[in-house]
Amino acid sequence: MTSTAITGIGELTTNDEELGALTDAALVIDGDRIAWVGPASRAPAADEQVDVAGRAVLPGWVDSHTHLVFAGDRTAEFAARMDGKPYQAGGIAVTVRATRAASDAELAANLRKHLAEAAAQGTTYVETKTGYGLTVADELRAARIAAEADEVTFLGAHLVPPGEDADRYVDLVCGEMLDAVAPHVGWCDVFCETGAFDADQSRRVLVAAKERGLGLRVHGNQLAPGPGVQLAVELGAASVDHCTYLTESDVDALAGSDTVATLLPACDMSTRQPLPNARALLDAGATVALASNCNPGSSYTSSMAFCVTTAVLQMRMSIDEAVRAATWGGARALRRESGDGAVGILRVGARADVHVLDAPSAAWLAYRPGVPLTHAVWRRGTRVR
Amino acid sequence: MTSTAITGIGELTTNDEELGALTDAALVIDGDRIAWVGPASRAPAADEQVDVAGRAVLPGWVDSHTHLVFAGDRTAEFAARMDGKPYQAGGIAVTVRATRAASDAELAANLRKHLAEAAAQGTTYVETKTGYGLTVADELRAARIAAEADEVTFLGAHLVPPGEDADRYVDLVCGEMLDAVAPHVGWCDVFCETGAFDADQSRRVLVAAKERGLGLRVHGNQLAPGPGVQLAVELGAASVDHCTYLTESDVDALAGSDTVATLLPACDMSTRQPLPNARALLDAGATVALASNCNPGSSYTSSMAFCVTTAVLQMRMSIDEAVRAATWGGARALRRESGDGAVGILRVGARADVHVLDAPSAAWLAYRPGVPLTHAVWRRGTRVR
Ligand SMILES: [Zn+2]
Ligand SMILES: [Zn+2]
Repeated sequence: MTSTAITGIGELTTNDEELGALTDAALVIDGDRIAWVGPASRAPAADEQVDVAGRAVLPGWVDSHTHLVFAGDRTAEFAARMDGKPYQAGGIAVTVRATRAASDAELAANLRKHLAEAAAQGTTYVETKTGYGLTVADELRAARIAAEADEVTFLGAHLVPPGEDADRYVDLVCGEMLDAVAPHVGWCDVFCETGAFDADQSRRVLVAAKERGLGLRVHGNQLAPGPGVQLAVELGAASVDHCTYLTESDVDALAGSDTVATLLPACDMSTRQPLPNARALLDAGATVALASNCNPGSSYTSSMAFCVTTAVLQMRMSIDEAVRAATWGGARALRRESGDGAVGILRVGARADVHVLDAPSAAWLAYRPGVPLTHAVWRRGTRVR
Repeated sequence: MTSTAITGIGELTTNDEELGALTDAALVIDGDRIAWVGPASRAPAADEQVDVAGRAVLPGWVDSHTHLVFAGDRTAEFAARMDGKPYQAGGIAVTVRATRAASDAELAANLRKHLAEAAAQGTTYVETKTGYGLTVADELRAARIAAEADEVTFLGAHLVPPGEDADRYVDLVCGEMLDAVAPHVGWCDVFCETGAFDADQSRRVLVAAKERGLGLRVHGNQLAPGPGVQLAVELGAASVDHCTYLTESDVDALAGSDTVATLLPACDMSTRQPLPNARALLDAGATVALASNCNPGSSYTSSMAFCVTTAVLQMRMSIDEAVRAATWGGARALRRESGDGAVGILRVGARADVHVLDAPSAAWLAYRPGVPLTHAVWRRGTRVR
């Protein structure tokens, strides 16, 4: 185990309340942890030194919402949508068919390829979901394969399999499927939306998951106003994701809760939906996360930088708010923002997930839209780019 | 001089009317020209072969509107704007001061850095402008330094230098300044906008430039409806750029002319303006180009992919329309789309500017927003990435 000092940091975003943002800073990685953070002039010696020559450094992106256990792509469906065809949740069934038909090795290789692609862009902590299996065997297989990601969420309640009865499918999810999958995952999620699962069905799934000790997450309020947000808050979910259509009482409920509002702007843009009202959430005091929702149907991007750029240029989030939402916010949505090995934060004891930008300031993520700015990345203390 | 066969092209966008779009294709580069394009099965032998394994290939981006002879950056002004301060053309003066204070070597190095950054993202043909000098000596210096780009535009009429009389400055631009600069540039441009130059002043500059044999371009209709578009059409300008605020008669005028409507969506987004009505222009039959407007004040991006992504996801251009606008459209705006050494097009005799995407289809430019997709680039027959 060697230590690495990263010196010459022009601007350091720590997300730590006491440290704040530093200029002319350094940090030391020891093993897979951050061992020291502070002014460059006081940096302790380390086995090796990397001078980043005035560049900006921030915690690696925490992508708290992806669907990476899948096969196939949906380029043709996307192109048709750009020619005017509306997005419908039923398109998920296309990926379900391709995923079921793929071998374990194919699914694992595809997951690994996307995790590597994300890491090359500064994403160092990734949640991913099942949800393209929708049978006990296929969901269990997906959960096992997903273990290569940092966090795994069971999303058996992604879609009622075509031709099946919704309530009978919910029985399966709440019983046999959860029994099989729960030992392999940390979280349970449900797609609470017209066309997927209604409030009662969603509640049944979430309650059954909670009884088995899983943390809760909800896909809600994506395609129209709906019960997802209130249900998430009521059941103490860690996060409710999408939040494209919020009422004032949804905003108030989030602001008065520990449930994170996870915004997925690349998904809204890829489905030509409006962008969520981040300003209302932030001004009310809700905690906001930004995530990619990387999946082949509604949001096939792994670029957290694109989410940050969009949040600043189009959702009126400040640069600081957007960068924090894509790092600390994602960690909070996964309940990993504090304690030993925390992510989305750079302080002593945090996981050594470090993103060096080819820019003097994190502001360049919005000032230079689309320009690839990732210069170097450490994940768990290992340089991956 | 060696020849290179690029084989295994999964999808080839040629922009050539006869060739159209090909699948399972190949092309041959000989020196700095395209020597052959066609089906993979009939590809002739070449000195070397590069198999792109099913990837999509398109002409290199033609960025027909940049301002790359500058010094300094305006990160702080940008961040303030993201906190609610409106964009004003007067900010140009900040860059004028920094540019005047920089050495020739500094300006040349900065230009070269940005051209290399653009090339690494698939941009193979770049127009750039003077306009941060605003004295005879400084504009002449900028024009000489800009010669490293593919096309150079004189933009002495970018801003009335602070403290000077507008009409007296226009006299200088139309006389001594044009006399000095005209031998070094191919184009003359004017910023026809409230706060910069009015219609009469703009016309004087453009007429004086035309008399000296320069091609014409106009910055118009960026911050409000105005006379820029009509003036450009009246004087036969090759392009009118921005077009954020168009009346119906502006659209009609463009559709009935050879003047290209060059849209700069990264600029509109970076200044939190609305996006231009590309659909109205295309539906009326106008020719549309997409360009970056790369400059440190209002649009500090070199990413043509970001412009294409934005055009598709937010301006309702189809993928084909957007890709064509960022290649052939830019070439047309520079009158380089036909003849020997044409750019923005892949056919025999065209300049060998080739962009290989790490994607099976150009649709991925919008399907995978923000993901860096440039796999390989040839510029004038030389591999630059
Ligand atoms: Zn999702
Ligand atoms: Zn411009």
